[in-house]
Amino acid sequence: MACLVWEALLLTAALLLSDCHSVSAVSSARTACADGAPPPPNRINTTERLRQLRELMADPRHKLQAYIVPMDDEHQTEYVSPHDARIEFISGFSGSSGLVVVTSDSAALWTDGRYFLQAESQMDCNWQLMRNGTEPKPPSEVEWLVSQLERGSSVGGDPRLIAAQNWLHFEARLRDAGMQMKLVYDNLIDLIWTEDRPPRPADPIVIQNLTYAGKPWEEKVAELRDYMKEEDVEVLLVTALDEVAWLLNLRGNDVPHTPVFRGYAAIDHDSVHLWVELAKVTDDVRLHLKALDCADGDLCVQLHRYDEVLYNFGSYIRQKWKGKILLPARSTYIDGVSFSFYNQVPSARRVFVESPIVRMKGRKNPVEIEGMKAANKRDSVALCQFLAFLEKEIQSGKEWDELSAADKLLQFRAEQDLFMGTSFETISAFGSNAAIIHYTPDNTTKRAIDTSSTYLLDSGGQYLDGTTDVTRTVHYGRPTEFQMEAYTRVLMGAIDLADLVINSQVKDVQMSLMVRQPLFKAGLNYRHGSGHGIGAYLTIHEGPILISPGGTGHLMEKGQFFSDEPGYYQDGEFGIRLETILFVQELDTEHNFDGPYMHFEPVTLVPFERNLIIPEMMSRRQLVWLNEYHRRVQLEVGPVLKRQKRERALKWLEARTAPIRPAKIAPSVGFTISSAGLPVKCSTVMLVWLTSAAISVARIM
Amino acid sequence: MACLVWEALLLTAALLLSDCHSVSAVSSARTACADGAPPPPNRINTTERLRQLRELMADPRHKLQAYIVPMDDEHQTEYVSPHDARIEFISGFSGSSGLVVVTSDSAALWTDGRYFLQAESQMDCNWQLMRNGTEPKPPSEVEWLVSQLERGSSVGGDPRLIAAQNWLHFEARLRDAGMQMKLVYDNLIDLIWTEDRPPRPADPIVIQNLTYAGKPWEEKVAELRDYMKEEDVEVLLVTALDEVAWLLNLRGNDVPHTPVFRGYAAIDHDSVHLWVELAKVTDDVRLHLKALDCADGDLCVQLHRYDEVLYNFGSYIRQKWKGKILLPARSTYIDGVSFSFYNQVPSARRVFVESPIVRMKGRKNPVEIEGMKAANKRDSVALCQFLAFLEKEIQSGKEWDELSAADKLLQFRAEQDLFMGTSFETISAFGSNAAIIHYTPDNTTKRAIDTSSTYLLDSGGQYLDGTTDVTRTVHYGRPTEFQMEAYTRVLMGAIDLADLVINSQVKDVQMSLMVRQPLFKAGLNYRHGSGHGIGAYLTIHEGPILISPGGTGHLMEKGQFFSDEPGYYQDGEFGIRLETILFVQELDTEHNFDGPYMHFEPVTLVPFERNLIIPEMMSRRQLVWLNEYHRRVQLEVGPVLKRQKRERALKWLEARTAPIRPAKIAPSVGFTISSAGLPVKCSTVMLVWLTSAAISVARIM
Repeated sequence: MACLVWEALLLTAALLLSDCHSVSAVSSARTACADGAPPPPNRINTTERLRQLRELMADPRHKLQAYIVPMDDEHQTEYVSPHDARIEFISGFSGSSGLVVVTSDSAALWTDGRYFLQAESQMDCNWQLMRNGTEPKPPSEVEWLVSQLERGSSVGGDPRLIAAQNWLHFEARLRDAGMQMKLVYDNLIDLIWTEDRPPRPADPIVIQNLTYAGKPWEEKVAELRDYMKEEDVEVLLVTALDEVAWLLNLRGNDVPHTPVFRGYAAIDHDSVHLWVELAKVTDDVRLHLKALDCADGDLCVQLHRYDEVLYNFGSYIRQKWKGKILLPARSTYIDGVSFSFYNQVPSARRVFVESPIVRMKGRKNPVEIEGMKAANKRDSVALCQFLAFLEKEIQSGKEWDELSAADKLLQFRAEQDLFMGTSFETISAFGSNAAIIHYTPDNTTKRAIDTSSTYLLDSGGQYLDGTTDVTRTVHYGRPTEFQMEAYTRVLMGAIDLADLVINSQVKDVQMSLMVRQPLFKAGLNYRHGSGHGIGAYLTIHEGPILISPGGTGHLMEKGQFFSDEPGYYQDGEFGIRLETILFVQELDTEHNFDGPYMHFEPVTLVPFERNLIIPEMMSRRQLVWLNEYHRRVQLEVGPVLKRQKRERALKWLEARTAPIRPAKIAPSVGFTISSAGLPVKCSTVMLVWLTSAAISVARIM
Repeated sequence: MACLVWEALLLTAALLLSDCHSVSAVSSARTACADGAPPPPNRINTTERLRQLRELMADPRHKLQAYIVPMDDEHQTEYVSPHDARIEFISGFSGSSGLVVVTSDSAALWTDGRYFLQAESQMDCNWQLMRNGTEPKPPSEVEWLVSQLERGSSVGGDPRLIAAQNWLHFEARLRDAGMQMKLVYDNLIDLIWTEDRPPRPADPIVIQNLTYAGKPWEEKVAELRDYMKEEDVEVLLVTALDEVAWLLNLRGNDVPHTPVFRGYAAIDHDSVHLWVELAKVTDDVRLHLKALDCADGDLCVQLHRYDEVLYNFGSYIRQKWKGKILLPARSTYIDGVSFSFYNQVPSARRVFVESPIVRMKGRKNPVEIEGMKAANKRDSVALCQFLAFLEKEIQSGKEWDELSAADKLLQFRAEQDLFMGTSFETISAFGSNAAIIHYTPDNTTKRAIDTSSTYLLDSGGQYLDGTTDVTRTVHYGRPTEFQMEAYTRVLMGAIDLADLVINSQVKDVQMSLMVRQPLFKAGLNYRHGSGHGIGAYLTIHEGPILISPGGTGHLMEKGQFFSDEPGYYQDGEFGIRLETILFVQELDTEHNFDGPYMHFEPVTLVPFERNLIIPEMMSRRQLVWLNEYHRRVQLEVGPVLKRQKRERALKWLEARTAPIRPAKIAPSVGFTISSAGLPVKCSTVMLVWLTSAAISVARIM
């Protein structure tokens, strides 16, 4: 799934990219609000809401000249529950990235290029739109505040919703301008959002069985305590929802697409604490956590009410804990601890670094590895079934659109064992819609799928034993030569990344150039990252891996899973993206000098679109990889389809995984190739190909 | 030149590599000083020198419990003049990297794996040797001081020789242990080093003519002032010697291998200042700098005595300058401003960042670009002549050793126009000596060159129009299969880097994985960086480019020149390194989406060793690059040799640049290949090769 990678890339990187769909006017002006222009089509009337908010801002208890509304919830989660969609309530904008600032007479939203059109259409004319990444640059939030307010002004914000690093940034810049940030614990949006607010999910918390989790929570706590001892830390605070879930082998259903529950944890050397909505804690979970009669000194979890976390944390800091407190800093995909915790810890006792859980969770244990492989294989089976089905339907003239196709795909997934739901909103995008990187279809935008362009399908599932994320792009008609060239270059980059051998000094950022190289050679590029880590029945974007040209990089480690997802997008015409989950495993090389070395095993098993491949453009090595990958898909997915008597899908799979050979077809000459020390049986007709390739060499190089 | 890249890599990177030649004993113990062991063979008696130093430390004016001696001079220069070799004087150790700490009863040197053997052999038994990068880890300088001294102790250092970032680091750590850093402006080594001290060079400063510099110093000052205005900086202090020389289009001869002179410069919006040894300033230079009657407000340089710089700077800070002062922070290959300047600027007025000159100097102007190309071409002519000569000599049984060969090479270089000297000490290394990355021959280590192993030659010249740095590895006999495999893999990595297409978001660090990939595939690696920036008649290692897996990276820009230098070293047996200077130039690609794009043009023009190449291992693309490169060498170097009637060299060149084809040879079939949009005429026999390559494909993949 690429769209949020793009967001993370914008957040963490120094990339100066322009927006995907730029609006040429002054960066804050609203095209839909100009004189005589038709008003924003999907606007929500925010006049009364803004009036109420401003009344609260002016209240003598607050006396605020401005109020900040962030996209985050209390856990700085990447996706938030509809209950926490405060920006949507106050502004109408429902995108997943943005920040709102309201003053007594202005209201502004900052967002990035993915969301300009959406924000234009959803926000009424009370709102200015600040288009990050455009030229001329819009003012930053602080620059804008400084231009709007007088010295001595107060800017309020909810410190539970604003990450410490962001709060400190605002505070420092405002102080330079003679203004101050003010802690407002009564969330002002919550005070006025009293009607029609989506309730919080009430699903109970469930145990993630050891069959899938692979390691008892007690062992995870012990390992973290070893780390804490080494780093001279007394307390580790855990605020990210997926870290809490991973740590205690629990799952929940509080956030869309992600099996987590609202909770905070803290570990010291004597006790483990969990703040959670107690109504969601079943007796089984209590037993699992040994929470009955749990006391300091025992290896058990002390349960507390979720809404007492700040109070408890503060009193522990003053009375119980005397040493250093590790507060999670910003890391890949997560914003880190909120200012409400940070603010309570004396500066000398703060250890403000990436949570050690980020890397521990990234290295999957053997049980998780098997689960991830199995889940991705089942998910691949479902996708193969769907692709076989859809191709037949489209080619026989049946009517399908982006939404009905996504629904059908969900049916196939739901038939798989251990399926729990989608891992993100399916990106089902045809033709020009596929050129919009973050596109998700709705009833107003959906296009029919036919034989005239590329169909890009980026989707994934949550399974009890793992999380999946896969993108394939197909063409049911006659692709243009440029579509084929672009697809082949995207595929070549994907293969070059998948085929790498690395050592333990290699960082994700160093793999970025390789994936883009085949596109660069023709002066092509794509405006999103090339890969992200993925959780084991957890979040779809999981740290630390982020393959993007910006940023300082994170060391690769064996046991990690990550996506390999280059793309190409021709504005207004078509889009291509290929995404395969890779597993980082140790490799026994011939010499192993300064080893260990590692390589990547694809766990997504879905054929590529031979209709779009120009084999003559590819190197021998790339073709060997491709044919070997297809052979594996055939060997692993084929028998499952056969067992299930899915005749059509099986036939489709066999055709799609047959060796790809340039130009001429000749009888297969099998021989064995030793790739990076791994013997692979290669049945491609390399001999014939090599001869015929020479003819088209002028085109290749 | 790789050895200093290695050092920079150690300094700037988070690489945890073990030493090249580890000593297994306790990290600080001296094998040569154990009971009954033969004493260090090349030791210098330091007993009396240490006695004098300790007397000064105890002097009531100083009262020091420890004294730090850094390797740096006042400009934190990479190479220092023999006059500044204070560590060699006090310890006997003459390596280029290290730090010395002396207490009242102990003396210790910290250095890295390149220098363990040398330090063992040069230091007498007054000295402990701290082997950085070994296991068990030696204590850091501060840890060692804390273990040796009591609370309240004072550690002295010369703030002119210690970079601000290093000083602040020591100061903070010692403060934690209740100790303090003490400014000692009377350098204690200088006070005792009164006899046999090499004098400072007295050569006059010379003008770097516009024919070579390409841009008047006045324009450089104006560009810097624009930058300073934008960044709200009143003063730019210039402390690195190559930056002073570049800024004012001057050169000198104060540092070995590098045409720089001792000087500091400062630019504000009204005046330009140069502190320099006035005896070295000729009338021509004064005229060039418009230094006669130069007053504030005029575009001219005000000259000051070198040794008054700190005094002048301090009074300007107090009286003349009221705004922010840009002090150069640590950057690639340079340590940044010394503490003596940093300390004089109030913290609110410090802008402590990389000097803007680093990037400006890195982007060569059109005249410098032409000069660099021309200098590298002439240097390549000399190296081709030498390699042709040496091959004939060795094969006809003549006796040559590493030193005599290096001397002969110097003769060939000296015949070239505009030659000014070597750009670093020649690494002329045969067989097992070539496996020592930092090796330079001397009379005790030199080996005869014969047909039994590889000969690695890493050398470069300073020319008025440019600086060169080139490494080739040859074999005059029958190489082993493994030597051929290793050479071919090194060459493949070098080609993959040289053949890249990048855009303006690519950083040097992202190119690191590509160069090593062919070695990684076989589990091979090398323990140094893969490339460094290079100056235009300036330093051999010039920022910002450093291609290494550690570090955060620097953006690539057109106009830069850098080395492409992978290697492989088999301890005790042989070494391979290939180094080619590449020029970063804009590339007109087919689509130019999100451009501009850039590619690399080799400016070093010396053939690779066909005797060591296994063409069947290489990809089509790599072979095309190689043959095209050799064709360019033939076309550019050949006519020069012909003009000079160098028959032998010309014949050698023709044989060495003929197309390389796998297995069989067939008549050449010329055809045109469009490589990344650049039409190149390719006369290799690709058709035939592609057919024959298939036969050996099992070996290739």
